Amino acid sequence: MVPALPDAACIREVGPRDGFQNEPEIISTCDKIALIDRLARTGITRIEATSFVRADVVPQLADAPQVLAGIDVPDGVSVSVLVPNERGLDAALDHRERFHEIGVFLSASETHNRKNVNRGIQPSMEALERVIPRARAAGLKVEAVIATSFGCPYEGRVSRERVLALARRLIDAGAAEIGFGDTTGMANPLQVSAFFNEALARFDGEALITAHFHNTRGQGLANAVAALQAGCASFESSVGELGGCPVPAGATGNIATEDLVSLLHEMGVSTGIDLDAMIGAAAAVRDVLGRPLGSHTLLAGPIRWHAGPG
Amino acid sequence: MVPALPDAACIREVGPRDGFQNEPEIISTCDKIALIDRLARTGITRIEATSFVRADVVPQLADAPQVLAGIDVPDGVSVSVLVPNERGLDAALDHRERFHEIGVFLSASETHNRKNVNRGIQPSMEALERVIPRARAAGLKVEAVIATSFGCPYEGRVSRERVLALARRLIDAGAAEIGFGDTTGMANPLQVSAFFNEALARFDGEALITAHFHNTRGQGLANAVAALQAGCASFESSVGELGGCPVPAGATGNIATEDLVSLLHEMGVSTGIDLDAMIGAAAAVRDVLGRPLGSHTLLAGPIRWHAGPG
Repeated sequence: MVPALPDAACIREVGPRDGFQNEPEIISTCDKIALIDRLARTGITRIEATSFVRADVVPQLADAPQVLAGIDVPDGVSVSVLVPNERGLDAALDHRERFHEIGVFLSASETHNRKNVNRGIQPSMEALERVIPRARAAGLKVEAVIATSFGCPYEGRVSRERVLALARRLIDAGAAEIGFGDTTGMANPLQVSAFFNEALARFDGEALITAHFHNTRGQGLANAVAALQAGCASFESSVGELGGCPVPAGATGNIATEDLVSLLHEMGVSTGIDLDAMIGAAAAVRDVLGRPLGSHTLLAGPIRWHAGPG
Repeated sequence: MVPALPDAACIREVGPRDGFQNEPEIISTCDKIALIDRLARTGITRIEATSFVRADVVPQLADAPQVLAGIDVPDGVSVSVLVPNERGLDAALDHRERFHEIGVFLSASETHNRKNVNRGIQPSMEALERVIPRARAAGLKVEAVIATSFGCPYEGRVSRERVLALARRLIDAGAAEIGFGDTTGMANPLQVSAFFNEALARFDGEALITAHFHNTRGQGLANAVAALQAGCASFESSVGELGGCPVPAGATGNIATEDLVSLLHEMGVSTGIDLDAMIGAAAAVRDVLGRPLGSHTLLAGPIRWHAGPG
């Protein structure tokens, strides 16, 4: 039998950052603000809104200050921004009153880290060991995401112990949350089960453990169920199945928030999210982007258990 | 922990019937034959090639005799055809030497059955109780698929006991295999786990138990893993995520064969299928249909654990 599941799960919507970042056409600041405000009214309680990256590296997110100034999210919605390094933190802190959390990241794979941020894991980690305490001193909660935690498209297998050792250092530096990212969709449910059983056992009470799956080979929700069965109750997902990863090209989207919400609710796991409202937000994203999205529930609509006579 | 999985699973490719049937543009007989022949050389051992339905009801499959006459599948590949009723069986038996199995179906939901085949469950069952013994007398193995086994878009919940009682009657009539279909993608992994645990316990040794999932809300592979964990080792899927169901409109595709194969292989469950060859077949289907398909692995490519320097 399948192990018992948590009664509730918490989802951070990462579409406005992880998703938009991978869109080739610039989305207007006005559209971004409207979409974030809409997402923030679906019942979701965590949103990654933007990133303070160099404008020449990620032109799509060059309007981070304007987005943060423009959004109007309800009380109880925690806004996070991604910062890649100390310079990003400096830029973010100029707008300190407009968000609640920061996200930082590095890769578990040396090659992926170099291709993604142009330096090795060790200097990345040392930078984070400066960034995280500074963010905490500013009253911010910090999530540290470890990319390629389940496999690397360049290096292949990634040792679980190596990933968990990186998590240990990030927690010791002050991270309140560790996100384990399947950045290019290489994880499978058996691996995920073993991984989260170990991670939760090791870090329980020290940090929130979050699963960040991509649906690269269609397996994202299967992995989410495996993580849930292991006791993980915190997920990141992207409205409409937006997203991917800058390297390598072709790495497809995060799991779709509305697909995840549908699945969780069907299994009796509450999220606080209004699925119809989330599907509406996905439709709005689709209309802004002007192309079909990967999301299945957006296309099919929610399951209706009490549909009238057809 | 996740329960142990079977060492191997068997997949029936249903794209040429379940998939093609739902394509609005007629696919040429020549293209169908080429695609089936290609699928038959991926290592897959079971293919549903076509259906003997009325040409005015499903014009796409009006060329069933020509398709069967034209295909050239290797030894060891079992070809099945779907027959909706006794007239379909008569038509199929005119080509008896060209296939090995037949599929028959009815719905567990009265309303879905009426909308799909224009009569109630009871007359459908009585017809199958004539069709199945006749097919067996002709030396054919019979799979009986029970559609809407996990929920009905018109009636909502479907009682598991009702579904299993239908399965009992079909097995007693001589069906060697029961396929439980999540026709419009309403199943979730908890439900699937309980369902297949019960079905396998009840019918073990009497019939092959097969899972037929749709990916309507992106949950298809999560359900496949749940069925696998329950001990189910027989699946139906559709190359490219083709497929759906004629009623209601909008019900999206079967799980993609290449996504299922990728997932199974990653978990150490062998299928005998060459994933690269299956992706190649999906690409050929995409080229014939001239549109993007829902399959994720087709887009992303297979996982390469030993990729060279990137």
